[in-house]
Amino acid sequence: GLVHIKNPHLDSMEEDVLYHLDLGTKTHNLPAMFGDIKFVCVGGSPNRMRAFAQFMHKQLGLAGDGEDLADICAGTDRYAMYRAGPVLSISHGMGIPSISIMLHELIKLLHHAKCRDVTIIRIGTSGGLGIEAGSVVITDTAVDSSFKPRFEQVVLDDVVVRSTELDKDLVEELLACSKEIPDFPTLVGHTMCTYDFYEGQGRLDGALCSFSSEKKLQYLKRAYNAGVRNIEMESTAFAALCRLCGLKGES
Amino acid sequence: GLVHIKNPHLDSMEEDVLYHLDLGTKTHNLPAMFGDIKFVCVGGSPNRMRAFAQFMHKQLGLAGDGEDLADICAGTDRYAMYRAGPVLSISHGMGIPSISIMLHELIKLLHHAKCRDVTIIRIGTSGGLGIEAGSVVITDTAVDSSFKPRFEQVVLDDVVVRSTELDKDLVEELLACSKEIPDFPTLVGHTMCTYDFYEGQGRLDGALCSFSSEKKLQYLKRAYNAGVRNIEMESTAFAALCRLCGLKGES
Repeated sequence: GLVHIKNPHLDSMEEDVLYHLDLGTKTHNLPAMFGDIKFVCVGGSPNRMRAFAQFMHKQLGLAGDGEDLADICAGTDRYAMYRAGPVLSISHGMGIPSISIMLHELIKLLHHAKCRDVTIIRIGTSGGLGIEAGSVVITDTAVDSSFKPRFEQVVLDDVVVRSTELDKDLVEELLACSKEIPDFPTLVGHTMCTYDFYEGQGRLDGALCSFSSEKKLQYLKRAYNAGVRNIEMESTAFAALCRLCGLKGES
Repeated sequence: GLVHIKNPHLDSMEEDVLYHLDLGTKTHNLPAMFGDIKFVCVGGSPNRMRAFAQFMHKQLGLAGDGEDLADICAGTDRYAMYRAGPVLSISHGMGIPSISIMLHELIKLLHHAKCRDVTIIRIGTSGGLGIEAGSVVITDTAVDSSFKPRFEQVVLDDVVVRSTELDKDLVEELLACSKEIPDFPTLVGHTMCTYDFYEGQGRLDGALCSFSSEKKLQYLKRAYNAGVRNIEMESTAFAALCRLCGLKGES
């Protein structure tokens, strides 16, 4: 149940500085700070991830009102991190490059802290496709802009293709949980991940737009027919990294 | 000298909401707020862009000490925006997707505000390549991880290749300015833009690393020989968007 680091160089490093989290193996006692973490929830906006940590604090019945949770990454403005009991809540900014930096450092943090059986869930916003506004989409597979279940990672100047399947048991567990909460529609589907919010997601209101409204609708229909139910900008990188490092992940 | 919007759909829109900046054409008088802007400086970190606006405030001899500059985008935590006289200072987060969202909305903002002859400069941090630490690299051309002067933009599911050359006159102007400031070395060179900080930039300390120290050095040497003098994560998208929209841009 430990987190897998796939980097032979790390063992020979005297110190590991998690630069963008403003944490490190020599400056912080990571096992003491994080060893009991069981759940990590990530989302784009720092304010929302603080609000989520406050909500979890109340849900878990922890002491105090949870209003004054400290940002564990207060020394940097790249990301924000809060904890409520065994739950860590972290912001990742917008887009694959931004979430990737955070995940590399988070995975090393969980490894250094000797955490076991960690579940990680991305709870960000996304644009729904052919579904009721306000729906929750539980992702079975993250797909790219060609609706393929893959993440193309550039390693130096090579392109490595990685799988983007998410944890099937976790999908079922979350779906079962949703049945106890009747307030909002929940469904399982593919999540499409793009590198661009405007031209990449068929929006007609960017600074540049070279396609017609018809072309946009044709593309979105093809996506729907391929099983896509929502669109966002991080899921393929999230799925690929979690899978490779043995983290039970859902988006 | 006006900013070019290349989107025929915008003319028929009753309102343009610049969602990630928390501004809009119906809620804000954009010409009154921004019509006199002549320079836009962008960088990753919100705190640094506030500090830069405070610095500009003092440099320009504006009234007050500039310590209490208001965040124009205070209603959102996606980006931060400050102004000091004719200079706008905006954060863009990390990576191409994050800067792209901001630039689409900034370009529309400058268009709606009827700004003229705007110069935009990215002043973010970057990793130097074969140069003295603390050097300033003025980018002549942004290149991708194969050292090619191009930005591949996915439009729906097509890939469109865009040029990433920056404004030559502005390069010369900035180089001339640097000669008046002897405190730090300044040079002109290519800037390489990657989608990933760890595996994409040859770092040996990510959660994943599949290459040797030798392979890393070989790659960085090839980059140096191709004219690359620094590496960051936004310049190709920045160069491509500024060029297409008639903004005089430098990075």
